[in-house]
Amino acid sequence: MAALAKVQSQVRLRSRPTGIPAAADFQVTHGPVTEPAEGEIVVRNRFLSVEPAMRGWVADLDNYAPPVAIGAVMRAFAAGEVVASRHQGYAEGDRVMGMFGWQEYATVPAGAVTRKVVETDLPLSLSLGVLGINGVSAYFGLTDIGRPVRGETVLVSTAAGAVGSAVGQIAKVIGCRTVGLAGGPDKTRMCTDVFGFDAALDYKALDDGLGAAVAATCPDGIDVYFDNVAGAISDAVVPHLALRGRVVVCGTASIAQWNPRPSGPRRERILLTRRARMEGFVVFDYQDRYEEAVGHLAGWVRDGRLRYAEDFLDGIDACPDAIAGLYRGSNLGKRIIRLD
Amino acid sequence: MAALAKVQSQVRLRSRPTGIPAAADFQVTHGPVTEPAEGEIVVRNRFLSVEPAMRGWVADLDNYAPPVAIGAVMRAFAAGEVVASRHQGYAEGDRVMGMFGWQEYATVPAGAVTRKVVETDLPLSLSLGVLGINGVSAYFGLTDIGRPVRGETVLVSTAAGAVGSAVGQIAKVIGCRTVGLAGGPDKTRMCTDVFGFDAALDYKALDDGLGAAVAATCPDGIDVYFDNVAGAISDAVVPHLALRGRVVVCGTASIAQWNPRPSGPRRERILLTRRARMEGFVVFDYQDRYEEAVGHLAGWVRDGRLRYAEDFLDGIDACPDAIAGLYRGSNLGKRIIRLD
Repeated sequence: MAALAKVQSQVRLRSRPTGIPAAADFQVTHGPVTEPAEGEIVVRNRFLSVEPAMRGWVADLDNYAPPVAIGAVMRAFAAGEVVASRHQGYAEGDRVMGMFGWQEYATVPAGAVTRKVVETDLPLSLSLGVLGINGVSAYFGLTDIGRPVRGETVLVSTAAGAVGSAVGQIAKVIGCRTVGLAGGPDKTRMCTDVFGFDAALDYKALDDGLGAAVAATCPDGIDVYFDNVAGAISDAVVPHLALRGRVVVCGTASIAQWNPRPSGPRRERILLTRRARMEGFVVFDYQDRYEEAVGHLAGWVRDGRLRYAEDFLDGIDACPDAIAGLYRGSNLGKRIIRLD
Repeated sequence: MAALAKVQSQVRLRSRPTGIPAAADFQVTHGPVTEPAEGEIVVRNRFLSVEPAMRGWVADLDNYAPPVAIGAVMRAFAAGEVVASRHQGYAEGDRVMGMFGWQEYATVPAGAVTRKVVETDLPLSLSLGVLGINGVSAYFGLTDIGRPVRGETVLVSTAAGAVGSAVGQIAKVIGCRTVGLAGGPDKTRMCTDVFGFDAALDYKALDDGLGAAVAATCPDGIDVYFDNVAGAISDAVVPHLALRGRVVVCGTASIAQWNPRPSGPRRERILLTRRARMEGFVVFDYQDRYEEAVGHLAGWVRDGRLRYAEDFLDGIDACPDAIAGLYRGSNLGKRIIRLD
């Protein structure tokens, strides 16, 4: 336990952002690693996750959990090894992933662990992306809310992203036709060339023509729209839902501000006439089915049907600007902070 | 068959309305009753139905069926007796309900019959309302899309109307707490005094205060919102959905124009954070389960748990203004045209 006496770096929320969290909303502080109490473990974080959803986690708005407090270590998934344990379920050296925060060492109750990472043949960082919150979101959002069947058309927004790319590939495993929406030529090309989408559309290049392009690309309509963005992109997609189409509301990345609530075209008539369904999805509801999803996802990673992209930034000082960077679209693949 | 030689009155669509169909959009014409061909029957209509949905049936917009053609007899449910039959499934004197149109006599293929009205102990007119499209809409919309369970809160718009009043009473049978929204003191009082809602709110009196009143009346949130109106009333309701709340999109009566598509507050964030569901419902999808619903509904009418109100207008000349009247809110109960 002598190692715990060292000073560590932590990233704390300094101010409450009203829109996209900026670097200045965070500060890096230095302090000792807390000794574990009974029932706690200490995790040495090797990889820190960066999620679009973090914008919601720090915002003072209606969300699925209370916001991170000012001055608190930023809430984040992370992966690392147990370096000290006062819980009988964990031993030094165990690889774990959980809500360990943006910090080098996390002293946490065992309940903060999402799972032990037992896939020792695969990189630990995958437990934050394709085998973590992103892959699991894709798996349950698609299969439990979207419920596509073989032959249906699945359209995904942010299709080159960590969730979207997994959605498209899982839909292919199911036997669907997949269409991806992405921003810019590089990401659009990744959709087809890396992630195997049957078609991909660059919403930035199409602009007002996106709706017509979606219609042309999905002549029989969209059976499942996996929506990570909301806003204008979704407004262009939703009118092309097929009869009994389903919209998985997984994220609202394109809307910077929800207070006051922004307006958009009303959807009631489309939902009514198509007998369509829009349904919200939060991955945390599936905590007790996590292993089911990871089991499938790891199998598909091993047999090559589920590819992934990782975008590493090195060192904890990269954290403060990392969320803003996601919203600038500067990443190609799952953004992860890599620690020594 | 000699009776068929007589001249009958029919109500035809004269012009395509852009909003609420007005009396001038229809004309009453006179002509002979058509002789039935093989496989056809002639129905003497006793009751003609008037529905809010008729606005959609005559509109040139995205709907679940092509619009009524200019010059055609107005599409309508009606109930009456078979007066001539060239189909072995029907005999003179059979009581039938179906898509017989706004006319005194309907010469139609047997496929136009929705059902034989076998509840001879109950008034024939009920087959157009509480035992017809309205009751069946309430039954399947609530039980199949809304899926409330005992103890949940069900909120209904147009709660004194033919669909809404049945929704509230079926929800009570299930064991739910019911809250009705209605326009004006008479309809609001009907909700509690006649239809047994636990609470009722007058949206006209509350105006901008509707959201706060809904919140106060539903302190644990709304589990099922049965939405017959869309628009501003729904905008006030939806923020108060409970976790895993469901919105049954059954009608859009408050929106006069869908082309161009009107705007309203975006709902994605509410759906996401509440894991809520909005789903469109069209009763015609349940044609093959009609008897299941009517069996339950008739039982509840007989044992007094399902009350209804009927609003009769006499004579076919009342048809042209009857839809506009619904939208003026001039009816108390299911509007029906009664013929001699």
